[in-house]
Amino acid sequence: MDRWQMGPEEIERRSMEIIEEELLSRGELPPAENLAVVKRVIHTTADFDYRENLVFSPGAVAAGVEALRAGAWIVTDTNMALAGVSKAALEKLGGRGLCFMADPAAARLARERGETRAAVSMELAAGLDTGGAPLVFAIGNAPTALARLYRLMEEGRVSPALVIGVPVGFVNVVESKELFLGSSRPHIIARGRKGGSTVAAAICNALLYQAAGRAQSWGREEKP
Amino acid sequence: MDRWQMGPEEIERRSMEIIEEELLSRGELPPAENLAVVKRVIHTTADFDYRENLVFSPGAVAAGVEALRAGAWIVTDTNMALAGVSKAALEKLGGRGLCFMADPAAARLARERGETRAAVSMELAAGLDTGGAPLVFAIGNAPTALARLYRLMEEGRVSPALVIGVPVGFVNVVESKELFLGSSRPHIIARGRKGGSTVAAAICNALLYQAAGRAQSWGREEKP
Repeated sequence: MDRWQMGPEEIERRSMEIIEEELLSRGELPPAENLAVVKRVIHTTADFDYRENLVFSPGAVAAGVEALRAGAWIVTDTNMALAGVSKAALEKLGGRGLCFMADPAAARLARERGETRAAVSMELAAGLDTGGAPLVFAIGNAPTALARLYRLMEEGRVSPALVIGVPVGFVNVVESKELFLGSSRPHIIARGRKGGSTVAAAICNALLYQAAGRAQSWGREEKP
Repeated sequence: MDRWQMGPEEIERRSMEIIEEELLSRGELPPAENLAVVKRVIHTTADFDYRENLVFSPGAVAAGVEALRAGAWIVTDTNMALAGVSKAALEKLGGRGLCFMADPAAARLARERGETRAAVSMELAAGLDTGGAPLVFAIGNAPTALARLYRLMEEGRVSPALVIGVPVGFVNVVESKELFLGSSRPHIIARGRKGGSTVAAAICNALLYQAAGRAQSWGREEKP
């Protein structure tokens, strides 16, 4: 068959097979409950460092899947990450995706306070009335967002069902992640400097597909 | 100073300093004309493999910068990548960013022909009337887009000023990139399996900032 004629589902299935084979060749697979997330992050980055970098609190995946099944709202810290989250899956589950980075209120408050829009975005998210829907935060870019989220949690102003902390970078990134490691709040963290908006979206999608009862995306071409 | 009080410009400046130090510790820096692109990709991924992975045809960066100064249109293969491209810089230069992945015509044609939307997107882009503006293609996700773009070029149906070929993945990705390596068309390729929408956006932004006469972004918080 002409190599370029393979459809998206077949491409994804074969990619995941290759990833699983390579994970096995490097040692034991990650725990079964975390495997889909690890595979999808490697699918999105082709970086097997995530096999070691990704840290899951006990039951984090189950907590995320349960929240998404209950129609959780996913809050991201970049519009890139939001663009990568499967809208089809969110719709199926009755959830929604939000990002406040382009919100004029975020720009204004950030300017007034001399803070990053990312940090202010977390405050705006904490003020949301979700009508009872749980909140899942997916931070792929800004350590200031992750640090502010932690502070808001400590102050009792927000109570996420799951925190996906995978900002990328060289300044304050590692420190922002260390805040969550060992905390009792369900979390999935990419230890170290690596991470990114596609990683955040990939983790959301792995959880969304599981919540929607799918082994993989249904014909989605984008990698996350 | 409270570590969390650093502003976006300062964070970026220090991050780039750290990246340059680490590049130096690993050997010679990349050639001066390519350095800003390499640094911005590492800024976006925290992955120093890109020091070796990124391949630049002679004068590729200059070709990209010249095209963007002439108001080039940037065509991406994902909405994620488009979301990551600096709209402020595009506006300053009189260019625009496009992606056909969510275009109903792309979905319809893909279904009719049994092809990927990504491949069809390239055909739609090749049919654009840009009013004389050059075209820059930034492929961060789909090998089928990169392969179709190559075919359209060979058939004389499109003539990009620059091709950024950085799709990520495990099936057909390496092969799609090999098509361009050694070709005379100006290209920036991420050799191997690594790449992604954030990498595509980062390369676009590095070129855009250079074209706009900036050493770095002006207070942009997103990493690409």
